[in-house]
Amino acid sequence: MNSIQNDIQEKFASPSNLLDPEEFKRQGHMIIDFLADYYKNIHKYPVRSQVKPGYLKNRLPESAPNDAEPIESILKDIQNDIIPGLTHWQSPRYFAYFPFSTSIAGFLGEMLSAGLCVNAFSWITSPAATELESIVMNWLGKMLSLPESFLFSGNGGGVLQGTASEAILCTIIAARDRMLNKIGRANICKLVVYGSDQTHSCVQKGAHIAGIHPKNFRAIATSKSNAFSLPVESLRSTILADIEAGLVPFFLCATVGTTTSTAVDPVGLLCHVAKDYNIWVHVDAAYAGSACICPEFRHFIDGVENVDSFSFNAHKWLFTNFDCCCLWVRDPSALIKALSISPEYLKNKETESKQVVDYKDWQIGLSRRFRALKLWLVLRSYGVANIRNFLRSHVRLAKHFEGLVAKDKRFEIVVPRTFSMVCFRLLPPIPLVEMTSDVGDSRDQIVTIHEARVNELNMKLLESINDSGEASLTHGVLGGVYIIRFVVAATLTEERHVNMAWKAVQGHADALVP
Amino acid sequence: MNSIQNDIQEKFASPSNLLDPEEFKRQGHMIIDFLADYYKNIHKYPVRSQVKPGYLKNRLPESAPNDAEPIESILKDIQNDIIPGLTHWQSPRYFAYFPFSTSIAGFLGEMLSAGLCVNAFSWITSPAATELESIVMNWLGKMLSLPESFLFSGNGGGVLQGTASEAILCTIIAARDRMLNKIGRANICKLVVYGSDQTHSCVQKGAHIAGIHPKNFRAIATSKSNAFSLPVESLRSTILADIEAGLVPFFLCATVGTTTSTAVDPVGLLCHVAKDYNIWVHVDAAYAGSACICPEFRHFIDGVENVDSFSFNAHKWLFTNFDCCCLWVRDPSALIKALSISPEYLKNKETESKQVVDYKDWQIGLSRRFRALKLWLVLRSYGVANIRNFLRSHVRLAKHFEGLVAKDKRFEIVVPRTFSMVCFRLLPPIPLVEMTSDVGDSRDQIVTIHEARVNELNMKLLESINDSGEASLTHGVLGGVYIIRFVVAATLTEERHVNMAWKAVQGHADALVP
Repeated sequence: MNSIQNDIQEKFASPSNLLDPEEFKRQGHMIIDFLADYYKNIHKYPVRSQVKPGYLKNRLPESAPNDAEPIESILKDIQNDIIPGLTHWQSPRYFAYFPFSTSIAGFLGEMLSAGLCVNAFSWITSPAATELESIVMNWLGKMLSLPESFLFSGNGGGVLQGTASEAILCTIIAARDRMLNKIGRANICKLVVYGSDQTHSCVQKGAHIAGIHPKNFRAIATSKSNAFSLPVESLRSTILADIEAGLVPFFLCATVGTTTSTAVDPVGLLCHVAKDYNIWVHVDAAYAGSACICPEFRHFIDGVENVDSFSFNAHKWLFTNFDCCCLWVRDPSALIKALSISPEYLKNKETESKQVVDYKDWQIGLSRRFRALKLWLVLRSYGVANIRNFLRSHVRLAKHFEGLVAKDKRFEIVVPRTFSMVCFRLLPPIPLVEMTSDVGDSRDQIVTIHEARVNELNMKLLESINDSGEASLTHGVLGGVYIIRFVVAATLTEERHVNMAWKAVQGHADALVP
Repeated sequence: MNSIQNDIQEKFASPSNLLDPEEFKRQGHMIIDFLADYYKNIHKYPVRSQVKPGYLKNRLPESAPNDAEPIESILKDIQNDIIPGLTHWQSPRYFAYFPFSTSIAGFLGEMLSAGLCVNAFSWITSPAATELESIVMNWLGKMLSLPESFLFSGNGGGVLQGTASEAILCTIIAARDRMLNKIGRANICKLVVYGSDQTHSCVQKGAHIAGIHPKNFRAIATSKSNAFSLPVESLRSTILADIEAGLVPFFLCATVGTTTSTAVDPVGLLCHVAKDYNIWVHVDAAYAGSACICPEFRHFIDGVENVDSFSFNAHKWLFTNFDCCCLWVRDPSALIKALSISPEYLKNKETESKQVVDYKDWQIGLSRRFRALKLWLVLRSYGVANIRNFLRSHVRLAKHFEGLVAKDKRFEIVVPRTFSMVCFRLLPPIPLVEMTSDVGDSRDQIVTIHEARVNELNMKLLESINDSGEASLTHGVLGGVYIIRFVVAATLTEERHVNMAWKAVQGHADALVP
């Protein structure tokens, strides 16, 4: 046996070598440099991946290797085979969906959590993870000026979940059980969930998972006239009709910053209606919640003092790595009653003392990462004042983009901008020849045909921008109108990237509408 | 303004500085060194945290800082305030619950995923993440010799979930909807879920979340006589009684490696019963699934060719950082029908072409991390042959521990060891004075009283071991008997740590039973 074989033999003699501190350092530093290079070069990559379905299958073997491979070859493969298949969510020219926010502090927090690798399902399984989470959720609650009743000090409390989908599912379960405990389990098919046609799809999915009858999700129609926010009177009349039909309203999701257009539902007014019927009100501020730490945006969540639960995603626009959804509830016992389970093997003195929080009872799964670390690192590394300014700078850039769009007469801003997203479209006039044509179409028909063409045109525009890799944007449909969404919230985005993206939009528009 | 203030001003002038590559490197390297030191010193820390509830509150400020703080002070606080509050799941003397497996490769994979920070909910949002996940799940499926029908090549497929709780919830929802689509939504209250009294609590919790009536979870009694595995005939008679009562059986969870004693349910025989009643069978092999990549353990999942879904946690005993639960289903369309939702803003050409997998439709949440990277890194960095040997070495160490226990006549091995866990207890004989006493107690009563005392004694023994910080173990109750579980599966554990733990057990036993 030669010395290299000897080395390998020794390296894999025992699993304990898999955490050898020297090797940990060597390989860890290598990855840090790899990632630093990734960020150095990220502006060079096409934003949306240009690969075709199935591209990776032919590049990788059909089975796992029998023998160990060195990290150097794996990193080479990541560079050659994986990077081209990524859509670069951290690119400065990423304006699609909502962002997947990161920062050095967010990343370091995730690294520390992965490195310490503790499981924080009960207090006892790592007290620091639970206590830091409670503390950081109080910090963040104060930054949002949430009412004291949402903080631990006011008998409410906060928890970090993976996604808004999970957080909202948990609140639906809590609300469902609160209601079913009153009216009897057999009535589950009568329960009704309310939102608008702009409510995020995870609410409907969550209701479905919770066993709510698929016919009992109400997507109340919104319209341009009230900027696509949930109309209070429609909510009341829908509730009344449901009660009339023998159904039982139990859950309402109000949204602050909808996905398609960042519309804001009138939280306070909706609560007035909901409270009349004992409906649990959740506020989903997944994206816009971050902005509400700035005093000038705080009014968008006015009325929150009357809701039952509130969530926003620090991984969207608060520079904290995914996953990090922040959920506060006014009545943790409703959550715990619905989600707690205490098999013998999880019992411990501290839980029985009722002196501690066991976050396993606040979520869907059992095991959980030490998520609070990254949020703590972000808040401390940057400080509240700077974070507020970062958010403001994104809003300013969106305003700048809005100005650019407004100056080009070919385009329309479809709804007024509220936060850091601009909804726009290319809107060529109806050709004169059609307006004066003799083919017998009424003016209404001509407008309808034109609108369909405009939608088609914008679809093509978006596709050609994304296919070019110059910038990534996504779409939505608002009252039948196909819109292009431009979200400024990626960490790396600066004014020049916004300008480049606008140039790309104009360039591709030129090609379509010469 | 002095130059330091100038520096700070510049550093926080724009959010784009939050990903400055040079600063990323500087701070990243610092954390790598911090974590390497953590592993260098981990054996010195008490395994279970010694802090008291509320310990952290007084050490941290009540609000987030307004100004930025340097990473150096944050790391100091982690060392001083956080580390003492951790239960060190990566300690070589950690033998509690099931482990939270890590390795350099697992950690690097998590780092890369956090650094690249893409959201892989649809194929288009990062093709590499989806395709690598499908490929790695095929690799792993082959390592487990799963039937072709579970692989993508056989029209099944695999997906990475966060926890077994989530994976099992997804399969319950798929099975629920498959049944309700036949018998009508209004019959949800009739649906029944089956498991044993050893089935993991997440199955009952999952059923509850899915809206299954709390009375309709059957925990079929197990007993020592068949090593706490699910008795096939009891399953059949329970199903028949439920059908007789007008209920509808629809889901069975069989466990390979139960939490309390690593019991193995007879998968093949259970499937025969379940198939007669069209019941969805899920196999939960959360911990023991890893061992089944070794040919000599593969027989424990025999019968898997007849189940509907199978899951195990690579984060438990496959050296892959949490979270990484591997789920395969024979019929992905059942999952997708139950969990898919397609709002306009998520639509894209590739999804519509049906040429791609969109993993958002295979899970509870929408957003998802690039989890496949870490699994890929683990499989490649170590290779299948070495990974098998690592698992075997843990089994060998458990066997060694079992031998140590067997040699000390004060102790009892409560159930035979199957994988890498030993269930034991201190079992002093009934004092002679009691056996011959005249107080009128029958022999049965004396035995009962003694058993209660023995349980109490073992509870104290466990508490004193954990309080000492010398090793961490947890408990279970099997047929009324309080047992101590000793799981050898932490990456760093070597024979000397097992010996140290056994010395600790003996030492604390000496103090209790002089």
